[in-house]
Amino acid sequence: MTLLAPAIEAASAAAPERGLTPAFEFAVRVYYEDTDTGGVVFYANYLKFFERARTEWLRSLGVAQSEMAVRLGRIFVVHSLDMQYLRPARLDDLLTIRSQITRIGRAALTFQQSAYRAGELLAQGSIQVCTVDATSFKPAQLPQEIRSKLTSNQE
Amino acid sequence: MTLLAPAIEAASAAAPERGLTPAFEFAVRVYYEDTDTGGVVFYANYLKFFERARTEWLRSLGVAQSEMAVRLGRIFVVHSLDMQYLRPARLDDLLTIRSQITRIGRAALTFQQSAYRAGELLAQGSIQVCTVDATSFKPAQLPQEIRSKLTSNQE
Amino acid sequence: MTLLAPAIEAASAAAPERGLTPAFEFAVRVYYEDTDTGGVVFYANYLKFFERARTEWLRSLGVAQSEMAVRLGRIFVVHSLDMQYLRPARLDDLLTIRSQITRIGRAALTFQQSAYRAGELLAQGSIQVCTVDATSFKPAQLPQEIRSKLTSNQE
Amino acid sequence: MTLLAPAIEAASAAAPERGLTPAFEFAVRVYYEDTDTGGVVFYANYLKFFERARTEWLRSLGVAQSEMAVRLGRIFVVHSLDMQYLRPARLDDLLTIRSQITRIGRAALTFQQSAYRAGELLAQGSIQVCTVDATSFKPAQLPQEIRSKLTSNQE
Repeated sequence: MTLLAPAIEAASAAAPERGLTPAFEFAVRVYYEDTDTGGVVFYANYLKFFERARTEWLRSLGVAQSEMAVRLGRIFVVHSLDMQYLRPARLDDLLTIRSQITRIGRAALTFQQSAYRAGELLAQGSIQVCTVDATSFKPAQLPQEIRSKLTSNQE
Repeated sequence: MTLLAPAIEAASAAAPERGLTPAFEFAVRVYYEDTDTGGVVFYANYLKFFERARTEWLRSLGVAQSEMAVRLGRIFVVHSLDMQYLRPARLDDLLTIRSQITRIGRAALTFQQSAYRAGELLAQGSIQVCTVDATSFKPAQLPQEIRSKLTSNQE
Repeated sequence: MTLLAPAIEAASAAAPERGLTPAFEFAVRVYYEDTDTGGVVFYANYLKFFERARTEWLRSLGVAQSEMAVRLGRIFVVHSLDMQYLRPARLDDLLTIRSQITRIGRAALTFQQSAYRAGELLAQGSIQVCTVDATSFKPAQLPQEIRSKLTSNQE
Repeated sequence: MTLLAPAIEAASAAAPERGLTPAFEFAVRVYYEDTDTGGVVFYANYLKFFERARTEWLRSLGVAQSEMAVRLGRIFVVHSLDMQYLRPARLDDLLTIRSQITRIGRAALTFQQSAYRAGELLAQGSIQVCTVDATSFKPAQLPQEIRSKLTSNQE
C-alpha cells in the first residue's frame, strides 16, 4: 500500500536489533463489541488487540503468562505507551497486528506495534512493558528462562 | 411512563419478601465505550451495569467484595441469568438500574434487575448469584455476618 | 468430558430441525481483557464470545452484518437470552464455542450456544435474535436472501 | 499527598492557559469489569475512565456529544495519546480523574488527564482529540458554538 506513515515505514524497514526476535503478525477481526456509536473501533480497544498480539507472540516463543505467574511469580504490566490513530477500523474489518520488540532490558521490554487493514496503516504505538512480582507488584527482574526464549531465535 | 411490561409492573408493585431488603436504585450514564456501531448499547454491557448495581447495593449494606474475598475467603459468582431486551439505550442516556433481591438461600442470592430511562423499561433480567470459596471456586456457604447485613433492614 | 449437563447432552445429541444448519464451532482464546480479579472470565464476556461465534457462523454462510446493514437496512439485535455458568474459564484457556440454530422465524432466530474447554462444558445459553430496521430499530422481516443462506445447507 | 510525579506536580500547579477552562474532577469506582486476573485494573480501561471524564467535562459546559453528532454533524475522535502507569488500581477503589484542557486549536483539543486514589497518582496521560465530520470522518473545524462554550468560563 501507499499511505504508510513515514515513522512506520522506517520502523518496518529497520532490521531488528541484534539478538532480538523478528516481527510477529497476528490477525484480529473487528466485532460489534469493538465498535462504538461513531461507527468505528473505540480507541481503547486497540490496546486490547495489541495485548492479544503480545500474548500470542510470547506464546509462539513458548511463554504462557498464566504459567509464568504461577510457577515463576512474575507478571508483565504496561509501564507506559503512546498511540497514534490514523484511520478508523470498522465492523467486520480483518486487521493485522504487527509487533516488533525493539528493546529487552533487565526488567522491561519495548514493543512497537501497529494495526493494518489490507496493508493500510490504521493505528500504531510504542508500549513499554515491565516485569513485576505477581503478588507485590514491585519491579522484578525478567527470569532468565524467559529472557532466553525471547532472545533465542537470534541470528 | 406507560409501557412497562406487565411482569415488571408486578415486580415493582410487589412488597419485598419478608425479611428481604427493599429495591435499590443506581444511576448509570451511557458512554461511548458502552455503545456499538448499531448506535445502541451492546447487549453484554447491561450485565456490566447490573453488576455495578449489585456491587453498590452490597456496599450500601456495608459489604465490600474485595474485603469479603480477602478476610472471609468468599466471592460471589453468577450461576445463571436470563435477560429481556425491550428497547435500546443510546449514547448519553441516563439509566436507572433497579435491583430487588428476591431470594436469599444458604449459598445463593437471586436478584431481579431492570434498566429504565425516564421511567421507561429498556431491559430486565433475573440473576442467580452464589458464594464460592475465593481460591477453589467450590460452592461455599454465605458467611453469617454477610447474611446478617443482607437481611438486617427487615420489617 | 464426562460431566456435560443433561440439557446440553440432549441438545448436542439432537439432530438439527429439518432445514436448519448444522452446529458451528469457533475457537476463542482467553486474554487478560476477558478475566477479572477473581481470576476467571467475567460473566458478561461470554456474551462477547457468543456474539463473535454467531457472527462467524453468519460469515461462513455468506452473510456479513456490516453489508446487511448498509445494503439491506437490517441489523440483528438480541431480544432475550438465558445463560448458565457451570465452571470458570481462566487466562490462556482455549475455548470452543459451539453454536446451533434451533429456530428460524419470520423475523427471529434462536441459537443454542455453549463454551467448552477440552470437551468440558463451561457455560451455555439460549439466545433469541431478531431482525430490526437499521435506522428505526423497529421489528422487520428477515430479508429473503439472508433466509435462503441460513437454510440453504439443509438435508 | 507526597508522591506525585514531578511532571504532574508541575501540571497541577500550572495555572490554566489564558482563556481555557479550569481542571475538572470526576469520580470513577473500580468494578469487577475493570479488573483483570492480575488483580488490578486492565491498562486499556483507564482510557475508558478518561473518556468518561472528558464527556462529563463537556457536559458540564453544556456540550452533549450525541446532540453534537446529530445537529452539528461533528464528532470527537482521539488522534494520539501517551500514558504512564505508575501504581495499580484495584477492585472497589474510588478514583478521581482530573482533566485539564491544555490547548484548543481550530479542530483539535489537548487534554492532560490523571487518575488519583486518595491523592496518590496512579496513571496519567496526554490525549489529543480532534473534530471530524460524523459521516466522512474527515477533519472538520470545531463548530463556533462549541468553541464558545469551551472557552466561555475564562478569566
